[in-house]
Amino acid sequence: VSDPRPVGVFDSGIGGLTVLAAIRNALPGENYLYLGDTARLPYGTKSSETVTRYALRAARFLVAQDIKLLVVACNTASAAALPVLEAALLPLPVIGVVIPGAAQAARVSRGAVGVIGTESTIASSTYTRAVLNRRPELRVVTQACPLFVPLAEEGWFDHPVTRDVARIYLAPLLEASVDTVILGCTHYPLLKGAIAQEMGPETNLVDSAEAVAAEVAAYLGKEGRRREAALGGLRVYITDTTERFRRIAQTIIPSGISALELVDLPG
Amino acid sequence: VSDPRPVGVFDSGIGGLTVLAAIRNALPGENYLYLGDTARLPYGTKSSETVTRYALRAARFLVAQDIKLLVVACNTASAAALPVLEAALLPLPVIGVVIPGAAQAARVSRGAVGVIGTESTIASSTYTRAVLNRRPELRVVTQACPLFVPLAEEGWFDHPVTRDVARIYLAPLLEASVDTVILGCTHYPLLKGAIAQEMGPETNLVDSAEAVAAEVAAYLGKEGRRREAALGGLRVYITDTTERFRRIAQTIIPSGISALELVDLPG
Repeated sequence: VSDPRPVGVFDSGIGGLTVLAAIRNALPGENYLYLGDTARLPYGTKSSETVTRYALRAARFLVAQDIKLLVVACNTASAAALPVLEAALLPLPVIGVVIPGAAQAARVSRGAVGVIGTESTIASSTYTRAVLNRRPELRVVTQACPLFVPLAEEGWFDHPVTRDVARIYLAPLLEASVDTVILGCTHYPLLKGAIAQEMGPETNLVDSAEAVAAEVAAYLGKEGRRREAALGGLRVYITDTTERFRRIAQTIIPSGISALELVDLPG
Repeated sequence: VSDPRPVGVFDSGIGGLTVLAAIRNALPGENYLYLGDTARLPYGTKSSETVTRYALRAARFLVAQDIKLLVVACNTASAAALPVLEAALLPLPVIGVVIPGAAQAARVSRGAVGVIGTESTIASSTYTRAVLNRRPELRVVTQACPLFVPLAEEGWFDHPVTRDVARIYLAPLLEASVDTVILGCTHYPLLKGAIAQEMGPETNLVDSAEAVAAEVAAYLGKEGRRREAALGGLRVYITDTTERFRRIAQTIIPSGISALELVDLPG
């Protein structure tokens, strides 16, 4: 069997494109629909109730396009809303970014895991629970990094200011001698250079994108639902159109986007 | 005559509280309703169409509470949507933050005015037009400062990182030898120390809050519509409730808020 329907991927904005790029690298034959809820970004400073409401609306838009699988490529939405999304969209399979990242960290850590993310993701403690469920003996240290998203969106990926901010945010993780850091926000891989420099070469940096891509490939393979084709398309929907989105999307997906379309979600 | 109805003030989030504080200082006898559209903030990175849609909805919510005057305490919304708001809300008087700030800069400048603001405000060129309408012989230099809002919301008002970012953003204004800088975003007065240090003591910093307060007082006085009372109340509505809002609101309005209420605006 083969399933030609597209894979749906959504995020509050552009960060999820890092996840999409990893999935597409693993599964180039699939068609992809990406929704960036740019009219309401960022999610990471908002309450879990509001994030859940936004995530449900975004998911329903993609489900209405007849997708075969939904990837929630946003840590804040995954942390706040994954159980609600799974229940609301049954029987559609839903894969978030938190569990694959937490599982990978639990596999590789030698004792202490650091988690960095938005205020909302850190406040939810979802990563901490997911890591400790797998290996209760680990220590988990968390740190919200609210300036990382705006720094990434400014394009200051390896800028002196970004390195200074990384030094401040990551100091508690260094003090706690973590050996593994979960990049708990899809924007953070863009700042990997600055984060790696601060944490040092011995520290594992867990980028959920790769782990999610592996899970998507495993799921579609197991179910016999891969699309059999050499190259699929990528259609991107955004709820607000700005030059900023085009600029950063170009950096993350340089190979090009088949179509970019503005959509109006209720609310 | 006297008009006991409240003055309505709105912003995308907390920045407008700096304007509210200035108005309340000038007119302590008024009752105030403040709406922070925190579920959709920030406005400054979004398109003018989206900002106009949000601003209309926010304004209609306050108008439904029978206000006597609307203050648009957000530069992005004032720059993008003021004519639309005025037309839609007739005959309600609407005062934005752009014109009073531009008028003050045009009064004090000795030749060159710098304007700093969000990407959306700078892209709109509203300030440039408003200054040049008043004094066509002036030079106007503009600079978007996307990291200033997140730095202010992080509470890094006079932090070394904020001073470094200010040095980078303000360099073109120093090179152009501006003598006056319009703080074209209601968050920026929170960073006044860092901005002043970079621009030097000879540079006028125009904070629209004072200019708006003077215009509100003049308007209500002229129309005989001030409320005759010793002290009025302040009711704050927000569209999303977060600890962050409470924390920063406390810094800006330490004297306290009578009531803080979560409201659900359509969309």
